[in-house]
Amino acid sequence: MGKEGRVSVGIVGASGYGGVQLVRLLMDHPEVELVYLGGDSSAGKSFADIYPHLAHRVAQPIESVDPEAIAARCEVVFLSLPNGFACDMAPQLVDKGCKVLDLSADYRFSDLETYQIWYGKQRQDIAVATKAVYGLPELYRDRIAESQLIGCPGCYPTASLLALAPLLKQGLIVPETAIVDAKSGTSGGGRQAKTGLLLAEADNSFAAYGVARHRHTPEIEQVCSDLAGHQVLVQFTPHLVPMVRGILATVYATLRDPGLVREDLITIYRAFYRNCPWVTICDSGIYPQTKWACGSNLCYIGIETDPRTGRVIVLSAIDNLIKGQAGQAIQCLNIMMGWDESLGLPKLGFYP
Amino acid sequence: MGKEGRVSVGIVGASGYGGVQLVRLLMDHPEVELVYLGGDSSAGKSFADIYPHLAHRVAQPIESVDPEAIAARCEVVFLSLPNGFACDMAPQLVDKGCKVLDLSADYRFSDLETYQIWYGKQRQDIAVATKAVYGLPELYRDRIAESQLIGCPGCYPTASLLALAPLLKQGLIVPETAIVDAKSGTSGGGRQAKTGLLLAEADNSFAAYGVARHRHTPEIEQVCSDLAGHQVLVQFTPHLVPMVRGILATVYATLRDPGLVREDLITIYRAFYRNCPWVTICDSGIYPQTKWACGSNLCYIGIETDPRTGRVIVLSAIDNLIKGQAGQAIQCLNIMMGWDESLGLPKLGFYP
Amino acid sequence: MGKEGRVSVGIVGASGYGGVQLVRLLMDHPEVELVYLGGDSSAGKSFADIYPHLAHRVAQPIESVDPEAIAARCEVVFLSLPNGFACDMAPQLVDKGCKVLDLSADYRFSDLETYQIWYGKQRQDIAVATKAVYGLPELYRDRIAESQLIGCPGCYPTASLLALAPLLKQGLIVPETAIVDAKSGTSGGGRQAKTGLLLAEADNSFAAYGVARHRHTPEIEQVCSDLAGHQVLVQFTPHLVPMVRGILATVYATLRDPGLVREDLITIYRAFYRNCPWVTICDSGIYPQTKWACGSNLCYIGIETDPRTGRVIVLSAIDNLIKGQAGQAIQCLNIMMGWDESLGLPKLGFYP
Amino acid sequence: MGKEGRVSVGIVGASGYGGVQLVRLLMDHPEVELVYLGGDSSAGKSFADIYPHLAHRVAQPIESVDPEAIAARCEVVFLSLPNGFACDMAPQLVDKGCKVLDLSADYRFSDLETYQIWYGKQRQDIAVATKAVYGLPELYRDRIAESQLIGCPGCYPTASLLALAPLLKQGLIVPETAIVDAKSGTSGGGRQAKTGLLLAEADNSFAAYGVARHRHTPEIEQVCSDLAGHQVLVQFTPHLVPMVRGILATVYATLRDPGLVREDLITIYRAFYRNCPWVTICDSGIYPQTKWACGSNLCYIGIETDPRTGRVIVLSAIDNLIKGQAGQAIQCLNIMMGWDESLGLPKLGFYP
Repeated sequence: MGKEGRVSVGIVGASGYGGVQLVRLLMDHPEVELVYLGGDSSAGKSFADIYPHLAHRVAQPIESVDPEAIAARCEVVFLSLPNGFACDMAPQLVDKGCKVLDLSADYRFSDLETYQIWYGKQRQDIAVATKAVYGLPELYRDRIAESQLIGCPGCYPTASLLALAPLLKQGLIVPETAIVDAKSGTSGGGRQAKTGLLLAEADNSFAAYGVARHRHTPEIEQVCSDLAGHQVLVQFTPHLVPMVRGILATVYATLRDPGLVREDLITIYRAFYRNCPWVTICDSGIYPQTKWACGSNLCYIGIETDPRTGRVIVLSAIDNLIKGQAGQAIQCLNIMMGWDESLGLPKLGFYP
Repeated sequence: MGKEGRVSVGIVGASGYGGVQLVRLLMDHPEVELVYLGGDSSAGKSFADIYPHLAHRVAQPIESVDPEAIAARCEVVFLSLPNGFACDMAPQLVDKGCKVLDLSADYRFSDLETYQIWYGKQRQDIAVATKAVYGLPELYRDRIAESQLIGCPGCYPTASLLALAPLLKQGLIVPETAIVDAKSGTSGGGRQAKTGLLLAEADNSFAAYGVARHRHTPEIEQVCSDLAGHQVLVQFTPHLVPMVRGILATVYATLRDPGLVREDLITIYRAFYRNCPWVTICDSGIYPQTKWACGSNLCYIGIETDPRTGRVIVLSAIDNLIKGQAGQAIQCLNIMMGWDESLGLPKLGFYP
Repeated sequence: MGKEGRVSVGIVGASGYGGVQLVRLLMDHPEVELVYLGGDSSAGKSFADIYPHLAHRVAQPIESVDPEAIAARCEVVFLSLPNGFACDMAPQLVDKGCKVLDLSADYRFSDLETYQIWYGKQRQDIAVATKAVYGLPELYRDRIAESQLIGCPGCYPTASLLALAPLLKQGLIVPETAIVDAKSGTSGGGRQAKTGLLLAEADNSFAAYGVARHRHTPEIEQVCSDLAGHQVLVQFTPHLVPMVRGILATVYATLRDPGLVREDLITIYRAFYRNCPWVTICDSGIYPQTKWACGSNLCYIGIETDPRTGRVIVLSAIDNLIKGQAGQAIQCLNIMMGWDESLGLPKLGFYP
Repeated sequence: MGKEGRVSVGIVGASGYGGVQLVRLLMDHPEVELVYLGGDSSAGKSFADIYPHLAHRVAQPIESVDPEAIAARCEVVFLSLPNGFACDMAPQLVDKGCKVLDLSADYRFSDLETYQIWYGKQRQDIAVATKAVYGLPELYRDRIAESQLIGCPGCYPTASLLALAPLLKQGLIVPETAIVDAKSGTSGGGRQAKTGLLLAEADNSFAAYGVARHRHTPEIEQVCSDLAGHQVLVQFTPHLVPMVRGILATVYATLRDPGLVREDLITIYRAFYRNCPWVTICDSGIYPQTKWACGSNLCYIGIETDPRTGRVIVLSAIDNLIKGQAGQAIQCLNIMMGWDESLGLPKLGFYP
């Protein structure tokens, strides 16, 4: 245990954007102590070499990744690695008694075959994977509370599922009509240098990518199917927005009862999320801007109905790196530890 | 007639973004001479007071708007005014023999009742409005060639309809499943200062607006209905992108024949647009960036099918101020005059 | 006094960017209670009408501005009004015993004649103005602690003076060689809609403005002269950066002793600011990005020397709306109240 | 010779930003035919694989780089390679009779020792290098006309020198007081993926780099010294602006005669550049935006004086990839071939 009775926490993969959010957020968390920063490619550097703006606050070095040593020092381990790495390391950490929160796709799928098809890696850790819980607290809070291993959701699925859940859970829509047209800032692409994510390429431009084949599709469908009680296919299209942070998901679906108006749905959504401190349903006629959510763990949801077409349109905005990634992982940790769900998380961003 | 046998052209509403595009484009057009710039609010100023970067190229003043005087000087008049003004002026210009290209919504509707419902203005110019032709050359080239009054399409309808036309015309989709999720740079909002369009507000953010009630909806539906041969309702959702120029329309529809693959559709689209110099169908697997189209009159179209859901997804990118506005108006003028359709229009933007 | 013994605080001019920062920051401050939001133009609206993202957190209405009533309810009043308004209201508030922090230019000048020349308003409140202290805590902490009326610095002067102060105070440079080439995000222009601040105009562009005549010049010179012990003229040039928040000041000056190297100066700066929690001197060879400071009250300073030219170049980065405005005002309040200088202020922004 | 008597032109290094500008510009040039695109790393790909938006216009493949073969096919060769490569290839091309325009730093220095110090490469091509002319047509038009090998200027030097030249040439300033505070869009960093140029890193931020040691410094000083008639040192500081294209140079210098006012200087600048179609001097009180120049070969220059400090401040705006790179190279080619200096170059960008 850390000093002053704090829980000792480590981060594997600290140098990426997920890692630096975790570092930043955990520094403000009153119940944890950050005792380990790991990353093979950056091992030996100081964290400040990679993020100089933190030089006056973070003195720790990046250490090499040795699960045995990590487990000896950390009660909680966040894994913020590319897909396909966590599944080689988590079993050992779980076995040593660590609570593990994985930010990659490795532990998001209850059906590992789906994982293997979409991510192309054979899995040896079936027994451990079976115990993993999908870390979307608004839907799986109770299971998260009792789990030792969390597969934290992708950024797009978080925004998409929070928009779709009340509709599917309550049978308000025809599930197969669901379309998610999602838009993300470029930080979602990570910190590795790729030509398409250069400012010179991506700024002042807008485009779709991964149309009809993005890997977040099966993740969205898994939860939608769980909510609907039968298998659901969802049309999911991601786009790149010339901005740093934020996701907006625009969700379309045909209402079973075209007589429902937006005020009805706002009431239903507010009831559905009444115990969820991180979901805010906008007033009638208000649609969220991604910027509202940036720098906070909030998800803003706006709702509209179109009586002409019988559809509902739901708009869901999050900060892709906080509620869509690191903040949500800490929200899960709070629940696992029995702490207040909102402990140590930023309640509001700055505007403008 | 202008000097060297050029056609004399005037612009009413020269100080807005539509106006400055027209000025810029017409300066490069080999067959016209710009003889009149008008605008009541800016009358008396020089054009360079409003756009200093043109001071060394445009010496003309902004003059007050007197239709009689305009008709005496101009064979062709572009009207680039807020909605509801052109319909008070065009009849007089048409009557005097001018060719008129209106960039507002006033002459886009064959059914004036639709206009009156959505734009809230009673119309006195029914006889003239009946003669107006919708200025989307890829669909109505022949009628444009014979018309004296063109209602130039809105920016969103241009991108949306070029994406939808082959599907509807050839009966490839279930029309009522059509959803247009459209995204625009903020120049589409014009040059009037509005808080929501300030860089401080709109930059690094993304949001929808006018959900289920944007005025471009009936315009899209009018042409879709014409193409389908029966009334079609379209779900249209505009969004604001933190960039200056460009529109991407992401169009979803359920295929009648789910066996169609994207290569089939690419072939169909290329055939449909084979005589259209301003429409480019992307190769298989390529989705357009808005930046590709910026600074040109091009529309880039990318096509994808999803065999899992039976849908087609079409991505259509234009420069909202050129192909979506001023460039398309000049394309119409070229057709009206019997000139080459691509005369004087920019064939390629700069990248990046 | 507010509930739980908190200090009751009011904001006049709550609807602008300064106001919304104050609201956001004061909500997190453990020792104050926000009891009044005022603004004549928005009076009667709820704050959430203006900033919908705060609807779930701020229930207060915007009230009309009545100094008598404000003084009865508030121990502390922040004035966030256009230049020339605070000087009409502050005397009354001061007289009633309120602590007043003015974010405008009205109380920044020890010589009111300078104010009158640059701001064009005759002043009737000379007695009160004399008591005002310039609210730059790193230079005037002791005087702030004892004052009842603070003229909070402009955003550009904050960045510029923190860069220049050690050089001038210690006589390291030839004062008249000082040049400040400053760059600001567009939020510095406020929330009023102005054409030049539209995203369509300002994005993807960069320009200077107010060259050789910006009103922050005399404010910078007043403090520089105070530090140097004689009158100093400073060349100050502001530029508009296509970004929302942040200021970078690039400061040039000729060293009196060209033998000084950057490590010497880093040592001097660190000593100068050793008791200043909000100033961070970068390590050798590191130049700050504005983004590092955004969302925090920090000022990052990077230092370089050029042995070829004998000049020092200092780079100073702040969030123009926090350390450059609302955060600094709260820093001053903390000092006035005898609280920890960093109480309730954001210690780090998010990156990227 | 190319078809229709056009001059056959090749580009080595076609896949970078310099290359794609050349391709785009040369396609519009009425006197040349682009017969060769080369690049070792991309050899074998089609140009459209790299720039899909050009797929419908450029069918050519990228070929491997064989100087012998290039010389056999091309009368003119543009070299758009990283620094240090052109000097290995140009001698052979020159020897075979090609006109060579090098966009790298290799042929910019009359004193190769300076090159070797700043660029760290020993040169074997001294005889050829001696014949190279610095390709800034506004200063060296006559020498360019007679040369076979042009070292095209860097982007920063172009903006800086056009601002400084009249002042130095006419002895109006104290040369050693010259400071160039320059700001560039990120496309100046090229198309290689670097972390610092990612949109997620560079957007909504602003910072200096290479302070007191950027490689464009000696290039600026070489020409300044030539103009002044004695050795001049210039303080040069580059900054990265969160935008794609454009450079603004803010130039400070102390006037020898502090009585000169800006109207005097505007008159002097207009006279100095009276035969220069690509330099536009702004009217009094107008400062250029970089956006004005983007998409054109123009340089806009704004001038201010500060009677308080005795300084002149000159603001110079260009498109870094056109007047700062590819456009200027074509301007040089026009001069070398005896064509009109403005042939085939874009006269105006689009606004906004």
